[in-house]
Amino acid sequence: MNQHVTPIEIDIDLSEELQAAVAAGDAVQLDSLLERLSLSEALRELLNLTVEERGSVLTLVSPEMAANLIEEAPHEVAADLMEGLETERAVEIMDELDSDVQADLIGDMEHEEAEAILSQMDAEEAADVRRLSEYEDDTAGGLMMSEVFACADTMTVSDVIKVLAKDDDDVDRYRGQHPYIIDGTGRLVGVVSLRGLLATKRAALLTTIMVEPKTVLANATLSDLGDIFDKFDFLGVPVVGDDGKVLGVVSRDAVSQALLERAESENLKLQGVVGDELRSMPTWLRSRRRLAWLSANIVLNMIAASVISAYEETLLAVIAIAVFLPMVSDMSGCSGNQAVGVTMRELSLGLVRPKDAFKVWLKEISVGVINGIALGILIGIVAWIWKGSPALGLVIGAALALNTMLAVSIGGVVPLLLKRIGQDPAVASGPLLTTVTDMAGFFFVLSLATLLMPWLV
Amino acid sequence: MNQHVTPIEIDIDLSEELQAAVAAGDAVQLDSLLERLSLSEALRELLNLTVEERGSVLTLVSPEMAANLIEEAPHEVAADLMEGLETERAVEIMDELDSDVQADLIGDMEHEEAEAILSQMDAEEAADVRRLSEYEDDTAGGLMMSEVFACADTMTVSDVIKVLAKDDDDVDRYRGQHPYIIDGTGRLVGVVSLRGLLATKRAALLTTIMVEPKTVLANATLSDLGDIFDKFDFLGVPVVGDDGKVLGVVSRDAVSQALLERAESENLKLQGVVGDELRSMPTWLRSRRRLAWLSANIVLNMIAASVISAYEETLLAVIAIAVFLPMVSDMSGCSGNQAVGVTMRELSLGLVRPKDAFKVWLKEISVGVINGIALGILIGIVAWIWKGSPALGLVIGAALALNTMLAVSIGGVVPLLLKRIGQDPAVASGPLLTTVTDMAGFFFVLSLATLLMPWLV
Repeated sequence: MNQHVTPIEIDIDLSEELQAAVAAGDAVQLDSLLERLSLSEALRELLNLTVEERGSVLTLVSPEMAANLIEEAPHEVAADLMEGLETERAVEIMDELDSDVQADLIGDMEHEEAEAILSQMDAEEAADVRRLSEYEDDTAGGLMMSEVFACADTMTVSDVIKVLAKDDDDVDRYRGQHPYIIDGTGRLVGVVSLRGLLATKRAALLTTIMVEPKTVLANATLSDLGDIFDKFDFLGVPVVGDDGKVLGVVSRDAVSQALLERAESENLKLQGVVGDELRSMPTWLRSRRRLAWLSANIVLNMIAASVISAYEETLLAVIAIAVFLPMVSDMSGCSGNQAVGVTMRELSLGLVRPKDAFKVWLKEISVGVINGIALGILIGIVAWIWKGSPALGLVIGAALALNTMLAVSIGGVVPLLLKRIGQDPAVASGPLLTTVTDMAGFFFVLSLATLLMPWLV
Repeated sequence: MNQHVTPIEIDIDLSEELQAAVAAGDAVQLDSLLERLSLSEALRELLNLTVEERGSVLTLVSPEMAANLIEEAPHEVAADLMEGLETERAVEIMDELDSDVQADLIGDMEHEEAEAILSQMDAEEAADVRRLSEYEDDTAGGLMMSEVFACADTMTVSDVIKVLAKDDDDVDRYRGQHPYIIDGTGRLVGVVSLRGLLATKRAALLTTIMVEPKTVLANATLSDLGDIFDKFDFLGVPVVGDDGKVLGVVSRDAVSQALLERAESENLKLQGVVGDELRSMPTWLRSRRRLAWLSANIVLNMIAASVISAYEETLLAVIAIAVFLPMVSDMSGCSGNQAVGVTMRELSLGLVRPKDAFKVWLKEISVGVINGIALGILIGIVAWIWKGSPALGLVIGAALALNTMLAVSIGGVVPLLLKRIGQDPAVASGPLLTTVTDMAGFFFVLSLATLLMPWLV
């Protein structure tokens, strides 16, 4: 009988059993309950508990299960969970994790808690973690692990096979790396394929079957790494210093994970959420972070609204315009956001560079002219029929057409300009776009109306 | 000397050399130019060419390079590129791809072109592709490949090692799968670890060292698969039918790739771009797709604007309100979008289910009350000072506070409800949210103003 691992258990609700097991301090029951769930379900149940209960669960279950849950959690949540534990327990959990995950966790934790954990860890491991956590996130240095399947250049095929056949954690931690051959001075000189190992006599020296390794420097970016793993079938790529010595290995998995996290965090930022929000975080923290972004936005909104304020007389003369002001600004905002979306995607696929701004603008304006005219005619006819004034239709239609062209231009190009000046396009593109399209939308409608006033009243 | 693969070549512009090589039909030069680039850079250069030139490049370069470019391209673009080729060439490129990629391509192509290619492919391979392309995307069936490292239950360790050591494409295509043991009736009965192979005598039967395999059914979802690969360290998981026969294997890589594509496509949809838009696509197609979404939005916008129309007298009496109408609706829209963003993320992490709607609402409304009051006070004071009317400040502030609470409630819960009724939350949440918050925002401001009219004029 095969063991289907999915659907594991659909929609079971274990919260009550979990709470009961936590209250009873029943470690065996907790482990068996959580084993029935997938990791994301188990994490969901964990985060539904109170902060104290979360600590109890992570203290009671097996260190493996606790480590799996910590690894499944988004970074900031994982650091919070670790900070809530006794140092001794936190160290037990750390021992189950790969060094790249250890370094991320330590980097995300408060200094004091991090130091407490490091001081109780194995000295060599702690030194590795300190070293890894100094590299920037989303670079080869920040993504690499220190566990390297390093073999001396004096080893034979038989020696390596003995290492591989050993049943210990170290080999698992190599995550499918091939054996890297290191010379007497610590420099990486070659790599051996599994096929090479199997097809060669056991007494042969590794150096006789090794090939030249592909390597990266510690400052290689996440996008570089994504490109490399797209191009080559490796499970890992070694990171070397300028002196040719191995610093660590970046696994394919770490890169996939980081790319997914980046896409999800950009998603959040485009929606105006800066930071790693989950609803299991404290209300005041969620509220404060969202407010920070909203308050900046309210100022931008006021600047845009001041345009309306300058034209109050025009509005008083033709009050029907007030009905269409939000429509024109909203619709152009939508058109502009489409352009932002496409640019953000092409950026993440590596299909545009900041210096392609003009090319992007040409592509956007051609769509903007078509859509601007189409939407302008549509809304113009609506305004004409609704309010019985062809001149009003003309004003609203022309304003939307112009503002659509402006909006797609800004939406397409602004993320590239922000990137060029080192700003995060996901955070700032939306607010910038909305402010300009609001201002311009109000201005187009109201100044055209002022111009055509004789035909409007 | 190690071969650093990054930075490969930064910011070189090969477009002119590429165009020259295409014009000259210089295959060797083309291959060597593209080899200097990463795949995403090469794809960017390819898509910068005209449609005819793209076809020439894919026809001239090596089938491996062409296959790599096709695989790097987003699905819809890849299908377009294939459709532009001679059938014979398309078949050569297909031969370089794994069966899961073949099936995706065939599924995305026009029926006629797809059939032409299938009819010229190896009959067995074509049958596999037809079978695979019948499964739904983003299920185990849709993601699996038919290349299975299947070993008869009569084989020995030595037999398997011989297969692994063979230098042919088949073994590469297994993508690191472990050997799966199949009995005489085609049922999957076990799996053997690399360590098992290396630590056992070569004459031993595989059945003596195999362990029970974890398997999935063909309808397992992408999220299920993501959970499985998070929980277990496998490089692949076999997909079996109800009868226990192996249908294919889903690789860890295919799942990572599909998760990333899903996140990126949700990003686009939240920004109002439905479909796989890249700027290298024809203008009329990009324009038509964006317009479809915008036109639906314009209708929703009109419904919202009709609220303003109903209150024209109030507006005429206190024209300053017109300045704040767009601000109130915009700001609440922003608050609601933040809630949409967090729900979408928790959905993709598997941390909420549609049935958690009430729990989510409780978490949202607590943030909504705090932020609504904070923003309400802020904008109220602004309105008071700007227009010199405390009553106006009260109207605008109260309206924004109420509408913020409404917006976060809708933004947090609507994606869950859409998911429950089988709609795509990424496409529909934004427009629904904006319409309701616009309507309600206008209504709160204008009805409060009508109520407090004596103090406003």
